[in-house]
Amino acid sequence: MEDYPSKLLAAAIEQFSSLPGVGRRTAMRLALFLLKQEKEEVKRFGEAFIKLRNEIQYCEKCYNISDQQTCGICTHPGRDESIICVVEDIRDVMAVENTAQYKGLYHVLGGIISPMDGIGPSDIRIEELVERVSKGEVKEVIMALSTTMEGDTTNFYIFKRLKKFNINISAIARGVSIGDELEYTDELTLGRSLINRVPYENTLVR
Amino acid sequence: MEDYPSKLLAAAIEQFSSLPGVGRRTAMRLALFLLKQEKEEVKRFGEAFIKLRNEIQYCEKCYNISDQQTCGICTHPGRDESIICVVEDIRDVMAVENTAQYKGLYHVLGGIISPMDGIGPSDIRIEELVERVSKGEVKEVIMALSTTMEGDTTNFYIFKRLKKFNINISAIARGVSIGDELEYTDELTLGRSLINRVPYENTLVR
Repeated sequence: MEDYPSKLLAAAIEQFSSLPGVGRRTAMRLALFLLKQEKEEVKRFGEAFIKLRNEIQYCEKCYNISDQQTCGICTHPGRDESIICVVEDIRDVMAVENTAQYKGLYHVLGGIISPMDGIGPSDIRIEELVERVSKGEVKEVIMALSTTMEGDTTNFYIFKRLKKFNINISAIARGVSIGDELEYTDELTLGRSLINRVPYENTLVR
Repeated sequence: MEDYPSKLLAAAIEQFSSLPGVGRRTAMRLALFLLKQEKEEVKRFGEAFIKLRNEIQYCEKCYNISDQQTCGICTHPGRDESIICVVEDIRDVMAVENTAQYKGLYHVLGGIISPMDGIGPSDIRIEELVERVSKGEVKEVIMALSTTMEGDTTNFYIFKRLKKFNINISAIARGVSIGDELEYTDELTLGRSLINRVPYENTLVR
């Protein structure tokens, strides 16, 4: 550990280093950068995070991040309320929204089942999803979790909880990425894309 | 530009992105990380930077960062006040301190002359250095700036300003790094290390 010439500096470096992916060296660089900014700017910098943490709300319906009680997607009149896309966190909501291919609603789990990290089914919003579906207005639930062991486990658990309802449960397609060369695709993905092959005409529509 | 589901989130991402080397994607990840922390922790996070910017002091003698009016190095009784090591910023002070090879004082310029960035001699603390030297107690000034065109320019400018005083003006040695292989050393550095070769016995002492 280096000896910092100032406790205030040491504290700021400490805080920056607490962020994921930020080491001591980067933290130092960032702290010195802030020192060169106007006081007013640094005040705005620090307060943005405090304000975010203190005032943020989660949509009471889908648990997407929101400035209101119910988020803009859930209240949008043009969205199809009979379809729910289940995602891990709000980044995934944004990713799906960016495709402009989806007009249903979301359900943000806030994590995935990961016994290694001590995260069980009750630590994420699965109960809330079951509750939403049980009201009878949902026709389809689309699973859109990561293709990891944790994602698969979570998918399977949710599937088990929802199968008693009379709804379609689907999962987003896995396959060779558009633009990817076949020879560099891992065999698991390639295998999956063969099993789940689609009628050729389907690939022509977008 | 992505559409964020919350203005508070957008503001926090905006602030993180203002840091050097932090893109939108990383900023997003950091903001979501903070959202998962305790309110109290995020408060400490944000306030550390505001406090740093508002309360930091610069040593009135060497301009090193400090929590007091004069820094710990300048007030240390064991340091040799007749030698001043001139560095660009406080990171360099820490780098030299970490070698444990230097017992003199410092002078932190707070930048280097860089016409491209609009930084001239009057924008950095050269006048203050001349003032310190003019008091007659300094016997040697060691230049320890980066080996860049800007560093060389600054060195030369300082040299011109100080040569009227009866002091030694030296520069840290440039040469092949310890542990480096000769064949991978650039020719400029290798050439410099040949010109500035030292008696073999000197390489044995540390």
